[in-house]
Amino acid sequence: MYTVSTSNHRYHHGNLRQALVDAALALMVETGGTDFSLREAARRVGVTVNASYRHFRNKDALMVAIAAEGFRRFGRALMEGALEADDPQGRLLGSGRAYVRFARANPSLFRLMFSSFNVGRQEEELTLAGNQAFDVLKSGLATFLDKPADSPDVAVAALRAWSLAHGLSYLILDGQLAHLPLDEDTLIERVISNHAG
Amino acid sequence: MYTVSTSNHRYHHGNLRQALVDAALALMVETGGTDFSLREAARRVGVTVNASYRHFRNKDALMVAIAAEGFRRFGRALMEGALEADDPQGRLLGSGRAYVRFARANPSLFRLMFSSFNVGRQEEELTLAGNQAFDVLKSGLATFLDKPADSPDVAVAALRAWSLAHGLSYLILDGQLAHLPLDEDTLIERVISNHAG
Repeated sequence: MYTVSTSNHRYHHGNLRQALVDAALALMVETGGTDFSLREAARRVGVTVNASYRHFRNKDALMVAIAAEGFRRFGRALMEGALEADDPQGRLLGSGRAYVRFARANPSLFRLMFSSFNVGRQEEELTLAGNQAFDVLKSGLATFLDKPADSPDVAVAALRAWSLAHGLSYLILDGQLAHLPLDEDTLIERVISNHAG
Repeated sequence: MYTVSTSNHRYHHGNLRQALVDAALALMVETGGTDFSLREAARRVGVTVNASYRHFRNKDALMVAIAAEGFRRFGRALMEGALEADDPQGRLLGSGRAYVRFARANPSLFRLMFSSFNVGRQEEELTLAGNQAFDVLKSGLATFLDKPADSPDVAVAALRAWSLAHGLSYLILDGQLAHLPLDEDTLIERVISNHAG
């Protein structure tokens, strides 16, 4: 493998990978999408595109890693949202609020994570991160419903909570609620709250 | 206005407009998106692009008309869904099922209707068609909740039902539920039913 670093930085294996993911995430925020190259991400961290090939064979591979990083952050956000309250219902609502908040704060990342781009990819990192995020909702609902986390009722309830938060997030991201007389925070609170209430 | 028809067809004013909308809808189905020109839609109905300018000043104007046509069909589908039952809850569930069914049957049209492309356009036809579709959900919920259709509770409940059906539709369209062990129809039935149940 011939890699030439044009940079003064020295990256250990894991560091360069993470640096490329971070650079790509920053590029997504700046460009509002995923319309940039692996070369641009490499340039951003000060290495050649050849050096980046050690970690990502192409841009798609980088996108998968970004989606996985997105799901890890998303899972943490849902957990932190649950910590806003002590009771099972309050914890669920906290996760629901955190779901929509994450979508609003990271629109391009959110769209990438849930786009068909990821479907059918047998990438362990992505599957794991996605499942961990969904498990936060499942575990919150298992407690709330007082049923085992692997019961069908919990799975359906989690999918319902997911659909609700997902639909509200998309309606907001796509500007479909901009004409409503309520401010968005009140709207989210009322739509999410009454659901579990 | 210099328009030359290359066709043997003779279109009255309203007929050509609708013919262009129908042609564009067919092109969306065939191409799986909106990546075609006004010229292609005109060619499809056998008129020049100049003739099409009498009805649509550019492709965006055609897209707005398509979205409005989509919302009219969507509104009718929600109403027909409500007719699947006689009781208020059954009618709501019928509309919910019809919502997701419409999204699955018309993925490109559904995405166009709810995309940010339409936001902020003060197009009377589009606003009217969109409101009429949403009013089907509102009126169903007003009956179900036994409250006036213009009450805040009904508005929030309608937005919740909309979010739920919208989120489930997007999760299905984007292939996010393909890995689940349930078939999609069962999934939709359980997610939608338990909500209003």
